[in-house]
Amino acid sequence: MSTASQAGITPSHWYNIIGDLPFELPPDIAQDRQGAGGTVKFQVPLALVRQSVGRECDIAIPAPVRERYNAWRPTPLLRAERLEQALGTTARIYYKYEGNNVSGSHKLSTAIAQSYYYSMAGTRRLTTGTGAGQWGTALAVGSRSFGMACKVYMVGASFRQKPYRKTIMELLGAEVVASPSGDTASGAKSLREGGMDSGNIAFAVTEALEDALSTEGTQLSVGSGEAYSILHSTVIGLEAQNQLASLGIAPDMVIASLGAGSNFGGIAFPYLRDRLRGTSNVRCLTVEPEACPKLTRGVYRYDYTDGSGITPLQKMYTLGYRFRTAGMHAGGLRYHACSKLISALYHRGLIEAVAYPQTDVFASATLFARLEGIVPAPEAAHAVHAAIREAERARDAGDSPVVLFCLSGHGMFDLAAYAEYLEGRMQDVSVTDAEIRASLEALPKIEEPELV
Amino acid sequence: MSTASQAGITPSHWYNIIGDLPFELPPDIAQDRQGAGGTVKFQVPLALVRQSVGRECDIAIPAPVRERYNAWRPTPLLRAERLEQALGTTARIYYKYEGNNVSGSHKLSTAIAQSYYYSMAGTRRLTTGTGAGQWGTALAVGSRSFGMACKVYMVGASFRQKPYRKTIMELLGAEVVASPSGDTASGAKSLREGGMDSGNIAFAVTEALEDALSTEGTQLSVGSGEAYSILHSTVIGLEAQNQLASLGIAPDMVIASLGAGSNFGGIAFPYLRDRLRGTSNVRCLTVEPEACPKLTRGVYRYDYTDGSGITPLQKMYTLGYRFRTAGMHAGGLRYHACSKLISALYHRGLIEAVAYPQTDVFASATLFARLEGIVPAPEAAHAVHAAIREAERARDAGDSPVVLFCLSGHGMFDLAAYAEYLEGRMQDVSVTDAEIRASLEALPKIEEPELV
Repeated sequence: MSTASQAGITPSHWYNIIGDLPFELPPDIAQDRQGAGGTVKFQVPLALVRQSVGRECDIAIPAPVRERYNAWRPTPLLRAERLEQALGTTARIYYKYEGNNVSGSHKLSTAIAQSYYYSMAGTRRLTTGTGAGQWGTALAVGSRSFGMACKVYMVGASFRQKPYRKTIMELLGAEVVASPSGDTASGAKSLREGGMDSGNIAFAVTEALEDALSTEGTQLSVGSGEAYSILHSTVIGLEAQNQLASLGIAPDMVIASLGAGSNFGGIAFPYLRDRLRGTSNVRCLTVEPEACPKLTRGVYRYDYTDGSGITPLQKMYTLGYRFRTAGMHAGGLRYHACSKLISALYHRGLIEAVAYPQTDVFASATLFARLEGIVPAPEAAHAVHAAIREAERARDAGDSPVVLFCLSGHGMFDLAAYAEYLEGRMQDVSVTDAEIRASLEALPKIEEPELV
Repeated sequence: MSTASQAGITPSHWYNIIGDLPFELPPDIAQDRQGAGGTVKFQVPLALVRQSVGRECDIAIPAPVRERYNAWRPTPLLRAERLEQALGTTARIYYKYEGNNVSGSHKLSTAIAQSYYYSMAGTRRLTTGTGAGQWGTALAVGSRSFGMACKVYMVGASFRQKPYRKTIMELLGAEVVASPSGDTASGAKSLREGGMDSGNIAFAVTEALEDALSTEGTQLSVGSGEAYSILHSTVIGLEAQNQLASLGIAPDMVIASLGAGSNFGGIAFPYLRDRLRGTSNVRCLTVEPEACPKLTRGVYRYDYTDGSGITPLQKMYTLGYRFRTAGMHAGGLRYHACSKLISALYHRGLIEAVAYPQTDVFASATLFARLEGIVPAPEAAHAVHAAIREAERARDAGDSPVVLFCLSGHGMFDLAAYAEYLEGRMQDVSVTDAEIRASLEALPKIEEPELV
């Protein structure tokens, strides 16, 4: 790599794309269906609710949040010169690296912001569910930054397979239990009945929610997909814009992997702003795993945002809320659907999507690690692979575009996956059309509201 | 943390302290004693030999090395503001963070330089022995940067306990085997005879050396303690000086942990230069583990620099080359002796030394991680602990010194040790006077040469 810009200036405002949308977003549908945890009232602070529906484009980052951001922001903007040379490409490849913080991923930017708003609303303790552990780690840091306690319900299988993720959360001051746990009524019931020892993220969130609802001063915080979590993540794209602008560079293409949306939206929305305002033709490309192809093979319809069916319905690209992604290493990309904001943009052709199999993704990540000296997280590796494919395409076509991608996290906790790849034991994971159809057919029939 | 300076300028020259020493270094004593691997000729490139004996103070960093340094240098200089507040200290605490590279530690600066000089001398493949894996990881990166192959003989016990260290070396393109291995005659013999399955660093180096001596175009590279490895590491202290000078700050005290010496010398020698030249009164403090107290409880005499007794004898502070540090987590601080350069400076009272038990060290590292958002490697944690103790002392005395320490590496591969600490299972490891005496009595009697 070579450092394009380590300096630059962290922006003073987040960017809210809702104010620039040339269309109305389909409204959410409240529902009184009982989920696994019963009918639910999310107690999200008013400031976060406003950020999810308001049309003001520039939202000031509160001073206490900016002060915490300064601990690791601005993050480096780097040029992948050795990779370019190895590919023999005429493309220039830049990447924004978000792994240089103790949580190891881009999620810290919204964890800090959410923790601030919850603490201002009087919360003294946050709970959450985490799968592979990135979100739990980020929230452990965020909670502590604002003097709140934090309890993380970690999917049992991950808890046992990734003991170091548990340790780092504890090291950062959080309480961590395997879900199902004996600490909640629903967890205790599940343990008594047996059959779900390994847990899943939907159940972990259910336990975290029960804890929050039954404990004074406690609220549940969720990591991705919400409009406000994308909003907070736009600090990444805005910062990249500042850094590239100081070099006189505007990218032709912006690439990021897609879990629920905060990573992709975080880097792409500030560039989409320019496109929506007619000052740029930048292409924005999401990358998803072939094992969880919500944009490339899902449908655009109303669905639950969680896996238990307790949340309001949102119109999204989805594989169905009961879809269970088969075992693959990019745990952060297993979410069944895609944020309604990003779904709407995709539906209108304003962004693009591509899906890749994991062995190709790990091959690119290994090449990247050897040349650039950063080990990508499996999630981030999807963006690496897409950037390499675009650079190869440019080479073959004789083009010289500027490609920017988000390297959203490091892979120091994912070396078992790399070992599997290096030893030739990794297999691709795919999903059949019939499986997707079956998952979608299980969805409740929803009468769609008419748009005003 | 708050960023004091991420910018600054990577220096153009390394600093060679030999040119400023107001005394002669005791000469090495060549010896024809047969070690485990037989009598040995080290084939160190002439440039590195010159760097170990020359008196020129400023040695230009070759352009290809500088270019590689640019991939992660300058490293951040940070202020531990939240830690200062938590301690209620009037001291200002700055730290130079060397963990932000793929090898995870300060060792990459000399690995890159050594790889350059070996490749210029016609070497096509490097071998080395590694214990916990930091040096092997750094050399994997260095070798690859200059187009050489790399084979790492990793202490068998670590190979099995730290599989991810092996994976990351392989990911970076090195071949890694557990030592004793079946790949060398000495390794095969050891495996046949049995009883040493877990290996040790001395034997791993012996195997790496046998490989180098018997394979065309192959040389052995060693990580620390040599004058040239300290020289290359001075880029750290010189860079910190530039960064602090740009803020108008000169530290009153510089602190670093002590393995063989490249970490301590790397940050402290540029400051000692000013002290030797009479322009500063800066105090330089080495920190060692109570389990391996070579400066604080060893003796200053001739000893072998390796654990097998195959190297020339050097006058050093030592616990005896057969000393085996009992199990403790800072694997990089287990070396029985201390670089002759640092030993001579300590002998003349130009630097200070202190030793701490590991549970105190981990308590400080945990506090640091929670407040500053970086998980220190156990080796680096010794410097964290010493800085905290100095800051507490300053608070109690009403002083306000500026303390600078080197945070030499991250602890992402050491979370098992943190788990042991957090769960109350960690024990202190100490060594008795009788054990040290016994180890020293096993040393051969050496007639010391008279100094000219």
